[in-house]
Amino acid sequence: MTELWPGRPVAERILSEARKRISQLSGSGRDPPGLVSIAAGSDPAFEAYRRPQRRGAQDLGIRYFPVNLPAESSASALVTEIRRANVDPSMDGILVAHSLPPGMDFQEIARHIAPEKDVDGSNPLSLGLLAAGRPGYVPAVALATRSFLEYHGISTRGKTLVVVGRSSTVGIPTALLYLLRGASGDATVTIAHSQTPDLGEALRSADIVISCAGSPGLLDRSKVRRGSIVLDVGVSIPKMTGGSGVLRGDADVSSLDGWAAAVTPVPGGVGPVTVAHLLASTVSSWARRIEGGALP
Amino acid sequence: MTELWPGRPVAERILSEARKRISQLSGSGRDPPGLVSIAAGSDPAFEAYRRPQRRGAQDLGIRYFPVNLPAESSASALVTEIRRANVDPSMDGILVAHSLPPGMDFQEIARHIAPEKDVDGSNPLSLGLLAAGRPGYVPAVALATRSFLEYHGISTRGKTLVVVGRSSTVGIPTALLYLLRGASGDATVTIAHSQTPDLGEALRSADIVISCAGSPGLLDRSKVRRGSIVLDVGVSIPKMTGGSGVLRGDADVSSLDGWAAAVTPVPGGVGPVTVAHLLASTVSSWARRIEGGALP
Repeated sequence: MTELWPGRPVAERILSEARKRISQLSGSGRDPPGLVSIAAGSDPAFEAYRRPQRRGAQDLGIRYFPVNLPAESSASALVTEIRRANVDPSMDGILVAHSLPPGMDFQEIARHIAPEKDVDGSNPLSLGLLAAGRPGYVPAVALATRSFLEYHGISTRGKTLVVVGRSSTVGIPTALLYLLRGASGDATVTIAHSQTPDLGEALRSADIVISCAGSPGLLDRSKVRRGSIVLDVGVSIPKMTGGSGVLRGDADVSSLDGWAAAVTPVPGGVGPVTVAHLLASTVSSWARRIEGGALP
Repeated sequence: MTELWPGRPVAERILSEARKRISQLSGSGRDPPGLVSIAAGSDPAFEAYRRPQRRGAQDLGIRYFPVNLPAESSASALVTEIRRANVDPSMDGILVAHSLPPGMDFQEIARHIAPEKDVDGSNPLSLGLLAAGRPGYVPAVALATRSFLEYHGISTRGKTLVVVGRSSTVGIPTALLYLLRGASGDATVTIAHSQTPDLGEALRSADIVISCAGSPGLLDRSKVRRGSIVLDVGVSIPKMTGGSGVLRGDADVSSLDGWAAAVTPVPGGVGPVTVAHLLASTVSSWARRIEGGALP
């Protein structure tokens, strides 16, 4: 039997921890956590991603500040917004939209986010700290996949884990996360991608598949090994959805039913857990502002 | 037939390019390139690694400055040396010994190296830039493995490449290098390590094996697939060699003879090519000091 792993209970566990931290540390006259989300141009898909962020933030008592610059803004206008937030003591988290207008380089811009406020692990320094196994923020989407496994009591130690996709914002940090030491790491990790000639061969011994390809229906039973766990990042972080507004994952769920051990749905799988981690990281940054201490 | 791939001709090609750059740009009153190598304590193995650096530097006309702090120095004493070199216009490359006395954290210290002088890619920012596919310095040892493949006309595109070892200074950057786009990247990459339960299974479909385990004789024909290319990083960057001073690689060359397609020897394989890349990156940093331009 194939289990369908919904995101809601996983997200709820993360959010309830964050809620607890907030109620512990909230005091008279103390600012609530603040999260700024910086975008340029108007991307309906990014707006669709912001809605649950805003809702989740409101629900937790995080102040959420969307900043929208015109599509024709310069990169330096975005950097100015980042610098403002870096020095604003009421801002604990800084988020930059992955999809920026042509000519703007996400990573070059994200390099200006202060590491201690880089709650989505976007600054290349954060990525390098992850690669080196050092404290620092990790992209929320990577943490989300790990939370599914932890929630279901799956250790990745000694397992074979295949990440499909090598983007620097999703696939690479996800792969790096499972190479860390510990029961939630220690996996033998393969990164497959568009230049992998035979995806089925790459997945042949996968205990766990994390798909970040953004290629709807890519994974069916002709490619996935029987008994694999499939965590579908797919378009949980929406790209343009062709205007339809419908999110589709990489997994062909009907083909995998009765074949895979477990599959996360899209929508309602990795997406809400990603939002929960983004908010939880903002709360952890805020807690550090109050209590001090090192990066997570 | 198994080819033995010596490092010398590969290193020579890299060094002759660097020599050409130096003679093009050297002019009256112009400082030659400068490389500082900072260590603490006395590690005979590190000294053994420095010897060919010093010799190679002299041969190219790079000024080589070894800085040796006492073993009981504080981390901040090393950082002070780094800061001094960061602002010294006659220093083009800054190298910190990987093996530092107990209590000193290599990555925390390397974080202070100016990215434009970080010729061995030791700063976590350099590692993150590599992970993100952005310009920046890459560890010389990772570049060395790639140079062997290029020298022998092997494209890694679409190939299955397995890195054995996940250290943040060797295994991880090497894996990231082959995930970049291009004919010398685009590989399907697996990272295996001490927690991989069955190394032979992980190597089952490897076209290319890059071994960075530091475990002499680990790879024999019981684990390596017939026809694989084996690039042996092993202890090419010497750890303590038990005082014997003998370098041994991860590959059991006699077992692999007649089995693997090619093997690099230790010593005389990846080691000298690593030194050549370190020197070449120093020359490229120096050339940028003269001509300006972006990171490589």
